[in-house]
Amino acid sequence: MKFAAADIYRSIGDIREKSPLVHNITNYVVMNNTANALLAIGASPVMIHAEEEVAEMAKMASALVMNIGTISEPWVRGMFAAFAAATKKGIPVIIDPVGAGATAWRTQTVRDLIRAGRPTIIRGNASEILALTDDRSKTKGVDSIAASDEALSSARRISEMYSCVVCVSGPMDYVVDRGDVVKISNGHPMMTKVTGLGCTASALCGAFAAVETNAHAAAAKAMAVMGIAGEVAAQKAFGPGSLQMHFLDVLYNLTENDIRERLKYEE
Amino acid sequence: MKFAAADIYRSIGDIREKSPLVHNITNYVVMNNTANALLAIGASPVMIHAEEEVAEMAKMASALVMNIGTISEPWVRGMFAAFAAATKKGIPVIIDPVGAGATAWRTQTVRDLIRAGRPTIIRGNASEILALTDDRSKTKGVDSIAASDEALSSARRISEMYSCVVCVSGPMDYVVDRGDVVKISNGHPMMTKVTGLGCTASALCGAFAAVETNAHAAAAKAMAVMGIAGEVAAQKAFGPGSLQMHFLDVLYNLTENDIRERLKYEE
Amino acid sequence: MKFAAADIYRSIGDIREKSPLVHNITNYVVMNNTANALLAIGASPVMIHAEEEVAEMAKMASALVMNIGTISEPWVRGMFAAFAAATKKGIPVIIDPVGAGATAWRTQTVRDLIRAGRPTIIRGNASEILALTDDRSKTKGVDSIAASDEALSSARRISEMYSCVVCVSGPMDYVVDRGDVVKISNGHPMMTKVTGLGCTASALCGAFAAVETNAHAAAAKAMAVMGIAGEVAAQKAFGPGSLQMHFLDVLYNLTENDIRERLKYEE
Repeated sequence: MKFAAADIYRSIGDIREKSPLVHNITNYVVMNNTANALLAIGASPVMIHAEEEVAEMAKMASALVMNIGTISEPWVRGMFAAFAAATKKGIPVIIDPVGAGATAWRTQTVRDLIRAGRPTIIRGNASEILALTDDRSKTKGVDSIAASDEALSSARRISEMYSCVVCVSGPMDYVVDRGDVVKISNGHPMMTKVTGLGCTASALCGAFAAVETNAHAAAAKAMAVMGIAGEVAAQKAFGPGSLQMHFLDVLYNLTENDIRERLKYEE
Repeated sequence: MKFAAADIYRSIGDIREKSPLVHNITNYVVMNNTANALLAIGASPVMIHAEEEVAEMAKMASALVMNIGTISEPWVRGMFAAFAAATKKGIPVIIDPVGAGATAWRTQTVRDLIRAGRPTIIRGNASEILALTDDRSKTKGVDSIAASDEALSSARRISEMYSCVVCVSGPMDYVVDRGDVVKISNGHPMMTKVTGLGCTASALCGAFAAVETNAHAAAAKAMAVMGIAGEVAAQKAFGPGSLQMHFLDVLYNLTENDIRERLKYEE
Repeated sequence: MKFAAADIYRSIGDIREKSPLVHNITNYVVMNNTANALLAIGASPVMIHAEEEVAEMAKMASALVMNIGTISEPWVRGMFAAFAAATKKGIPVIIDPVGAGATAWRTQTVRDLIRAGRPTIIRGNASEILALTDDRSKTKGVDSIAASDEALSSARRISEMYSCVVCVSGPMDYVVDRGDVVKISNGHPMMTKVTGLGCTASALCGAFAAVETNAHAAAAKAMAVMGIAGEVAAQKAFGPGSLQMHFLDVLYNLTENDIRERLKYEE
């Protein structure tokens, strides 16, 4: 897959114009930032999770993003119900397997979830993606201890198995659609010192997938925008507190020129 | 109802001096910002929701703010218990029907909640207020797709029915106490790109109602302060990330002069 | 106990180098800030709470921090399970009795929790610490209405009873290990206008206790770093919004010199 700065910027324009409703069932830690990032890029976030209403929400939503960061049984039930409704309607579904591999229950839960419908994009760090297929993989809490390239064969396997795009994020992001791998090396090391930017990346995958039928392109564009916005924000920041603030401002103001000057991708 | 900048500023002084305890049962997305906004204006926030303790908390609180953003059954039970205790004690109760109209369960839940006690102020966007009386009203997630003036007759009806103040917020805020309507047109478009400023407005209604017996004036003052603080913050901001930060700083430092120079209201 | 700026800075170096996994079961209001503060100081936060997995997480974690701010029954069950596993493994456990004294259920719950294992550090404001032993103590929501020195004898008693360190925070922080009391008077009044900085203090106790076997020193160092970072941040801030942002930047960039110039402690 090929894409240029102009393609990315056109998709941002689509998001800003259509303001797609992105339904998030995500963790408590990042809800505020995720909602703000979606608003900043031009989408319309909604964050409900109750089993009683998630299926009905799918009827209105243009994408569903599920993130297992702080799951408990009632939230898992909400995710299964939302996933079924989203799969039935045919909207893109993004799954973020936060902390997969950290505990047996978490790993099993997200494996079961992935099999319960048709995921469009799965995005995680290397440890998390490895844990989806490999029982020996270990995550240190929610931070990756594996390098992205170690997870590449897992990513390919999952992509084949579920006919979905798998994104392994890290200093180099791998966006995998079966044999087709796009590598994006935008971003800044200080981004790892802000909680939940991985979760934001998954939410942006939802926003791009809502306006772009090619899921591989949607995921790659989202990862490129994350990395580029992080770089621009890091230039203005004195630490992770100001990085988080500037990141939202930069997402809101992102220009085609910012993207053209910085985009670093290879097939 | 008439009010001047001096009245608003006097109420802010009362909040800063008395630091009223405002009990919030609100959604996960905005809890941090809501607590920070209440602290910045001078109130003392508490955010507990468990059925086991909410009634006892009402004994200490000067206002109760309930927001249905991310409800589930246990939280709804907590809201009913808190509402009963607050109504019994006679403290002001503010209800924010976030996303009313988006799903049948949500709409029914908030309609039942409103009928379960004596709400003092109901604050929502136009879609949400319309959904309280009109089954055909549709909300797009949590963002309004109706104009504020469309909701005005609904607001009047609800105000009559429950003897409460109804506030429809938007570019023009309508603060309705039966036949008496105050219009406030402060605010800035970028405020819609920060998640949860509507929820903050409801929380500030709680802070003002805690120190001001006239609920109509309390709601109008809260809406004016929201809009004015948002305008001042937007002047300093480069995007929604910095707007959110400056908003808290501005609330904390708001002067009578800021209010006098900017207040835009009409009866 | 004696300690100097160099000791504190050495511990920060250990945190930055080892990046200890700090498992937090904390409240919804502060989760984002707590995770960000732990990342900024160099630790690795994880925030899971489900009964199904907390015990397994203890095997990986270097410290457990439990905070009762927004508890409900399922979270309390998660805390008991996590505490048992952490006590069995022997990692430090920090308990933050947010709002103890505000309701009977809350007070009883945290008293039961403390007795269920071996807490290493208990950190709260004066009202909260008093409420752990005194039924007549009253908290105003989550803000202290007692002075720190009033809670000193309670703190000593709890420290003796549970062989743990008790930290009473306020304008003067008392860090009590039975007869040994360290007083730290760093900090800035504006810190009370940012929600959850007390919760952040408890989380930092977890980070320091993860790399420092002397719990008394760990708690004292955490309180000193909180106060010093708050002072430096307040110098740059225009209000509580920017204070919160600068606080994270300052934690991330804290130097030995910052600590040496500002540390105010006495035995």
